Amino acid sequence: MNNTGKPLSEGILFTDLYQLTMAQLYYYKGLHEKEAQFDYFFRNYPSYDSQGSKAGYCVNAGLDWLLEWMGQSRFGEKEISYLEKQKGRNKKPLFKKEFLKWLGRKGDFSSVSLKAIPEGRVVHPNVPLLTSRGPLAIVQILESSLLNHLNFQTLIATKASRIKEAASGGMVIDFGMRRAQGKGAISGARAALIGGVDFSSNAGISYSVGFPPKGTHAHSMVQAFMALGAGELAAFKAYSEVYPDDCLLLVDTIDTLGSGIPNAIKVFERLKAKGHKPLGVRLDSGDLAYLSIQAAKMLNKAGFKDTSIVLSNKLDEVVIWQILSQIRKESSKYGVDADSLIKRLVYGVGTKLITSGGDAALDGVYKLTALKEGGEWKPAIKLSETPAKIINPGFKKVWRIYDKRDKAVADLLSLDGEDIIKDNDLMLHHPVNPGMKRLLRKEDISGIEPLLIDVLKEGKRVKEGPTVADIRKAREKDIERLDTGIKRLLNPHIYHVSLSEKLWSLKQNLINSQKS
Amino acid sequence: MNNTGKPLSEGILFTDLYQLTMAQLYYYKGLHEKEAQFDYFFRNYPSYDSQGSKAGYCVNAGLDWLLEWMGQSRFGEKEISYLEKQKGRNKKPLFKKEFLKWLGRKGDFSSVSLKAIPEGRVVHPNVPLLTSRGPLAIVQILESSLLNHLNFQTLIATKASRIKEAASGGMVIDFGMRRAQGKGAISGARAALIGGVDFSSNAGISYSVGFPPKGTHAHSMVQAFMALGAGELAAFKAYSEVYPDDCLLLVDTIDTLGSGIPNAIKVFERLKAKGHKPLGVRLDSGDLAYLSIQAAKMLNKAGFKDTSIVLSNKLDEVVIWQILSQIRKESSKYGVDADSLIKRLVYGVGTKLITSGGDAALDGVYKLTALKEGGEWKPAIKLSETPAKIINPGFKKVWRIYDKRDKAVADLLSLDGEDIIKDNDLMLHHPVNPGMKRLLRKEDISGIEPLLIDVLKEGKRVKEGPTVADIRKAREKDIERLDTGIKRLLNPHIYHVSLSEKLWSLKQNLINSQKS
Repeated sequence: MNNTGKPLSEGILFTDLYQLTMAQLYYYKGLHEKEAQFDYFFRNYPSYDSQGSKAGYCVNAGLDWLLEWMGQSRFGEKEISYLEKQKGRNKKPLFKKEFLKWLGRKGDFSSVSLKAIPEGRVVHPNVPLLTSRGPLAIVQILESSLLNHLNFQTLIATKASRIKEAASGGMVIDFGMRRAQGKGAISGARAALIGGVDFSSNAGISYSVGFPPKGTHAHSMVQAFMALGAGELAAFKAYSEVYPDDCLLLVDTIDTLGSGIPNAIKVFERLKAKGHKPLGVRLDSGDLAYLSIQAAKMLNKAGFKDTSIVLSNKLDEVVIWQILSQIRKESSKYGVDADSLIKRLVYGVGTKLITSGGDAALDGVYKLTALKEGGEWKPAIKLSETPAKIINPGFKKVWRIYDKRDKAVADLLSLDGEDIIKDNDLMLHHPVNPGMKRLLRKEDISGIEPLLIDVLKEGKRVKEGPTVADIRKAREKDIERLDTGIKRLLNPHIYHVSLSEKLWSLKQNLINSQKS
Repeated sequence: MNNTGKPLSEGILFTDLYQLTMAQLYYYKGLHEKEAQFDYFFRNYPSYDSQGSKAGYCVNAGLDWLLEWMGQSRFGEKEISYLEKQKGRNKKPLFKKEFLKWLGRKGDFSSVSLKAIPEGRVVHPNVPLLTSRGPLAIVQILESSLLNHLNFQTLIATKASRIKEAASGGMVIDFGMRRAQGKGAISGARAALIGGVDFSSNAGISYSVGFPPKGTHAHSMVQAFMALGAGELAAFKAYSEVYPDDCLLLVDTIDTLGSGIPNAIKVFERLKAKGHKPLGVRLDSGDLAYLSIQAAKMLNKAGFKDTSIVLSNKLDEVVIWQILSQIRKESSKYGVDADSLIKRLVYGVGTKLITSGGDAALDGVYKLTALKEGGEWKPAIKLSETPAKIINPGFKKVWRIYDKRDKAVADLLSLDGEDIIKDNDLMLHHPVNPGMKRLLRKEDISGIEPLLIDVLKEGKRVKEGPTVADIRKAREKDIERLDTGIKRLLNPHIYHVSLSEKLWSLKQNLINSQKS
């Protein structure tokens, strides 16, 4: 029992009180060290608006930071001393000495084993993305922080992936920290990078995860020169002198087309004369589609055909899609080639990326699925009046099935003992609807991949976590193997998540036994 | 120059890269130590949906944590060493040695002074909630973290205040950490308490801010007993034995009315026989209005008229309002008194509180408003094609005006030199529309209160920050002085924020001088 160095609010007490009161109950009922298994899964893709902007897949993220938190968090002296001070309604201590002594000895995650789907993988609802196994009281206490870590990073990686897809290959930069939800800015920037965003403006976290931060300048720089009696042109000149090879100018402080772009061009010409290549301009207000066409026209005319045009201001995947579609439709009217313009666009995406604007939470849950009693594992279930909310019980394997085009066609949950790969034809059972089945013939299947892998064995990492750069590659590979319909920004096609016949039967038997 | 002990991502590099590149530009142009003033303000109240659920006021929060961050953050060795490694497009260091040396010496907030509206106060758009003054490069670097701290806590305090108002006096508990945006769970819980939520389930932060955490139990406890062959009743009994004076039972693991409530009543009867007072039940699924009426009916019949009924599951202010309205309309049909039922309701509000569901970001900005040159302050302005986005320039005072009922009727921005209190009748000028004015006669005014106070003088706190408990009192007092129409959950009446004649004239002159 010693101190952990973390602030109380960020260590193992980054949890809900009821995890601790349940742990104490398990202790006094002799259940605390029984082996238990919990599954982490989400029930619904994020859904961003009532017009059907909705994710058709999610990008798994947050695991490495959860493992790091687990490695650093335990009940040290200050945590125990805090719990000693908590009182019940009867004014007596809520936690008893004997339990706290046990917690001081055993209250860490060295007894916990985890299987998980790796970060960066595309994932779907009702599929266990992680299963934890360990003493009931300990895996119970883990719940709140686990959900917090995985729900948020998966949410943001998913939003980022949609934004990156909408950008049609253009560079995307996270500009979100100023309106992020507190320190969610930090884990969110990591998740955004995992989801396919290319860079973040956030200096500290970019460094920590091995990406250089990116940025331009703010209106305040231009305003400062203006307040001193100089103008926008003087501000741009100053910027080009200090950053001759990184000169990217924000052109909307006064009037984008009337002042900003002409002044930027003057400065770019000076730079060019001195042998430097100007980087570009940023548009931060107005009709970004119209302005980017006009900006391109003016820049092209002045001989700056390759400079970037950075767009920012309330962007998200749907806005980007609309801007590109307007450019494709209208740019030729102004003598601007749509494809060349689109290739030079860069997107600075802020608030709606870092907060997942429109749906600010992933509904992931962590449910008890089995408990060991007398050497034997007993499957656990939770009923619900909504059939889709009844959990899939027991130990399970998760398989991804690929068709002959090498596209993922379904995720299949089976019992742990089943070896789907050896099977011939595969019968996929709808998770809720008894009559709905789908037969996949062996000859139509190009591959079957197990998704859950061991990541923690009794508190020890099985191997070092991959870098963010590696995780990005996993995402890219999975995105390529998704049908276009699943990736559609609005009203995506629904990916199949199915149960094996054996798992379906176990679930039905348990439901019936609980109802009787 | 020394190390700060904070992780790199949470110290002074919790900022956007462009603040640092602008700071370097100011350095090389000799502007870095010029005194500058920035204003922090938001432009729009949070707006939660397209049906008109929208805030009519905000609750100011986050200042104390910002001040704490400022006190602990500076450019130490590791931050400087990080900046040394950043490269430009030309592969040369982005930051030059001379600038970094200056940053190592002067790169902290000991030169910054702040005025601010205190936490807990009700605040409105386009009113400076904070003004910073200090060397241009330093107050520029402050921007990103300042916005992150203040935007998020004000957002959540506002949402919390609406939820607390909707609860009509009922206790509200923050249950949100599992789906919060990463560590936004922590600052968000503090902000929720500031906004009027009574307790949080989050153990660590509750302790840090001096509130006991609250909670019940999860489905997993009941599931564990079920998996072992015992049932819901055995689980409830176990809970009542370990927590005889804090017995609050979650009744929807199997079937709320068919199993949960009857089992809870059995356990409550045992407790009562032993001289304990049962605490209540929690409903976490289904039609919470209908179920709470039925639960009350069953509990009343069994003689438990005072036990709490805790409601949870996707609550927000509008859902709570609808539940209460349904109870008021329907409970008498079932022989249940609506008022007594409403008095025993407790609300566990999760995701939509801690993420501000529907509008996950406050649009606060931080704009340069004045710069000192040759001993004289020059007002700064930023134009925009949207008149409402043109900033109010220069040094300003903020006044709140109360009418004879002691209700706040308007916030007035004046020039720093004006003393509004000495004026007779007050002319309030619409911030954008030239023709719109409103005359307030002296005899109709009961009080004029200046809102901005000194909180930091050259890096030193003017006084210790108030406790969260004190901040809550400030909010309550302000809420009482708001017209009911402003507090309406849907389509609230718009509170007036006006300019004095002199400030209006300065703004017009600056706009004209920039346009010409």
